[in-house]
Amino acid sequence: MSENIHEMDEAQEEDFALAPETVNEVLDAVEAGEAGKVEALLDPLHAADIADLLEQISGTQRRALLSLWSTEIDGDTLSELDESLRAKVVSELPAGVLAEAVRDLYTDDVVDLVEDLDAAGQETVLAALDSTDRVAVERALSYPEFSAGRLMQRELVKAPEHWTVGQAIDYLRGEDGLPEQFYHIILTDPRMRPVGYVTLGRLLGSPRDTALSDIVEDSFRIIKVTQPEDDVAYAFNQYHLISTPVVDEDDRLVGVITIDDAMAVLDEEHDEDIKRLAGVGDESLSDNAYSIMWRRFPWLAVNLVTAIAASMVIAQFEAVLIQIVALAVLMPIVASMGGNAGTQTLTVAVRAIATRDLTGANAWRVLRREIAAAVMSGIVFAVIIGVIGVIWFGDIRLGYVIAAAMVINLAVAGFAGLLIPLALDKLGIDPALASGAFVTTVTDVVGFFAFLGLAAMVLL
Amino acid sequence: MSENIHEMDEAQEEDFALAPETVNEVLDAVEAGEAGKVEALLDPLHAADIADLLEQISGTQRRALLSLWSTEIDGDTLSELDESLRAKVVSELPAGVLAEAVRDLYTDDVVDLVEDLDAAGQETVLAALDSTDRVAVERALSYPEFSAGRLMQRELVKAPEHWTVGQAIDYLRGEDGLPEQFYHIILTDPRMRPVGYVTLGRLLGSPRDTALSDIVEDSFRIIKVTQPEDDVAYAFNQYHLISTPVVDEDDRLVGVITIDDAMAVLDEEHDEDIKRLAGVGDESLSDNAYSIMWRRFPWLAVNLVTAIAASMVIAQFEAVLIQIVALAVLMPIVASMGGNAGTQTLTVAVRAIATRDLTGANAWRVLRREIAAAVMSGIVFAVIIGVIGVIWFGDIRLGYVIAAAMVINLAVAGFAGLLIPLALDKLGIDPALASGAFVTTVTDVVGFFAFLGLAAMVLL
Repeated sequence: MSENIHEMDEAQEEDFALAPETVNEVLDAVEAGEAGKVEALLDPLHAADIADLLEQISGTQRRALLSLWSTEIDGDTLSELDESLRAKVVSELPAGVLAEAVRDLYTDDVVDLVEDLDAAGQETVLAALDSTDRVAVERALSYPEFSAGRLMQRELVKAPEHWTVGQAIDYLRGEDGLPEQFYHIILTDPRMRPVGYVTLGRLLGSPRDTALSDIVEDSFRIIKVTQPEDDVAYAFNQYHLISTPVVDEDDRLVGVITIDDAMAVLDEEHDEDIKRLAGVGDESLSDNAYSIMWRRFPWLAVNLVTAIAASMVIAQFEAVLIQIVALAVLMPIVASMGGNAGTQTLTVAVRAIATRDLTGANAWRVLRREIAAAVMSGIVFAVIIGVIGVIWFGDIRLGYVIAAAMVINLAVAGFAGLLIPLALDKLGIDPALASGAFVTTVTDVVGFFAFLGLAAMVLL
Repeated sequence: MSENIHEMDEAQEEDFALAPETVNEVLDAVEAGEAGKVEALLDPLHAADIADLLEQISGTQRRALLSLWSTEIDGDTLSELDESLRAKVVSELPAGVLAEAVRDLYTDDVVDLVEDLDAAGQETVLAALDSTDRVAVERALSYPEFSAGRLMQRELVKAPEHWTVGQAIDYLRGEDGLPEQFYHIILTDPRMRPVGYVTLGRLLGSPRDTALSDIVEDSFRIIKVTQPEDDVAYAFNQYHLISTPVVDEDDRLVGVITIDDAMAVLDEEHDEDIKRLAGVGDESLSDNAYSIMWRRFPWLAVNLVTAIAASMVIAQFEAVLIQIVALAVLMPIVASMGGNAGTQTLTVAVRAIATRDLTGANAWRVLRREIAAAVMSGIVFAVIIGVIGVIWFGDIRLGYVIAAAMVINLAVAGFAGLLIPLALDKLGIDPALASGAFVTTVTDVVGFFAFLGLAAMVLL
């Protein structure tokens, strides 16, 4: 019995995420002003969980918590915070605490922390660093935002390509300043260009006289310092990389990117795509109502314009609507089905473009497939909705009209759902960002026009 | 000048993804029946890129290519294929070729390959393995689908917790059967339970007499063999893990999961979420029109039902619509704005549930925020659409009605967009899968009802 309880407790622990009960306990302690209790509760938590806690509570609660606990905050927690919240917290922290917190961080984490701050915040953080670190951070900030140069760490382990396993092991055993985390030795030629890499596991498993060049990994890719970070994430995911060397304009080794950073980028890219498809910008749960309202406003404003455009199509058929009010009842069905079918196709297209599966080479074949699928399901739904129309309103011609409009609108949805994201991608616009508005405009306009236009021709 | 051209060539190469030109060259060679040329083109490609190529071409082209090249296909390429295509290719390959291909794979890759095949396909592959590997694969298949047990590899490196750095290095140097890829040594207690892990980098950088227990990593998490794989991906991403030990029911070490597998799971989970939100099932670009039609059909059928429900609301107001046809023109605007605002909120909610940021602890605060934001933007859009309504149709009361309906529908959208995913999650249903249909039903029904109902009260 006690064994079972023990197991249940463990199962709870292994949910990994921050427990809601912990959040509530911390908030109770904050409300009671018990700094010692707050510290005792937060101390065992991972920095990522403390950051989640700060994101989940309200602004008032957060300020109360930080006033009790801010001297304990460390750089890792700041690194883990959402960008928008991080800027707020950094501006609220006493300068001394901030300086203390950032001094513990690796330079790539400082870059990540600093790049989203305003000029004053950046200055505060940079001033807290010693001069070597400051130069390294400023150097990294000189690379474009979202580039490999911002993502890489400068701490790396390299060896000349002609070394043996024994030489490499002796070098590592004798070296003092090794990075805390490294998994590979990068081999360089005399001009400091990376030519391959050896995993530490393979190094330890090979005889001392083996040439390093004989045990390099097959899968070796070099990243340019200016390469966009989404290319980096793609390469790691596609080729199962664990770390990659980063080179400057002259192909010289300047840094290394490891898979945990690439995984974080992949996660951010996905988050951005999923939100952009829904017309939501870069917002977080810690943003207030006013801020999220304005972040979502542009998409709703675009939608208002397209909805009015669709209404203007309907207005052209006022004469028909006055005579046959059933049309007003049924017309949203045609538009709604088209909108949903279009969204299905465009989501598949946006994903396939992001994973680089949809290209010029197969666009034509995929288009034929989408149209064929759309026409087939159009026919099925046309029969269903046609029968419903006839039964509901007792007019067989109304059934023909809505059935025909359904086939037309679903075919157009397949066409627009594929070609609009492809066209936006060609124009260099993120298809996740803009496709939705275009596609639903097309399906609304075509849906209303086909249905009401056919009705005007057939029924009047 | 030649330097510039050289750099451009390199930039092309560093796009990483499979080039469309390569696909076309391969297809030309296939059409000409030149097996040697096909092999020469495919040979330098990474298995992941060959898999992408097979996914991008049509079924006829694929069969032609495989008939020229199938003896060269290796296990890695099979592993990289989309599940649906993999089943087809496996069934098309000669048994001998398949056996040859799978024998090169690690057991965890064989598991990944085998688990999606039908019974006959599984039998073919298992029969090709030697008996030790077959037992290992069958053991892994006994764990639930999508569990850590399916994901882990059994090849791992461990050491007793009381060892020193020197003992560990000597052991590794003397050991023959080390896995090809490993980055950590897992420390175990006498009952074979993992108690910590040491990175190889730290091992190599520490004096020989250091106790391994003094240089273990801070961030150590243990995964249960039955834990769902999305928990595993979450833990790696949240806690920046590189590898984790996996334990059985008795907490004994049975395997290890590395970050590249966790990254692949994270990628799949995201892909699933983004597609489920749009009502698209698990489909790939290599599926044919008939197959994608049926995969998307259920969501469209649900949408048809909800669209008809909304139409039945409209039908209640036929008497009003006959008298004021402007209502038919304007009513889709209210429904459309509600649908979009609801989708924004639900997407944020679905993501926040997936990242475990939205919990019982903050749901109430987030709900108030969503409602406040919805009412604020509702008021702004109400004023805009009210003015448009008045100008367009010359009736100030119509302006009031559409403005009021807009505020009501956007507020309801915020409410439903947050509470529906939360409720589905509580019920154990994936909110990404079902929220969209519920939320747009609510905003359609409320939108038409509020607008036409208010119009009936005010305008008649």
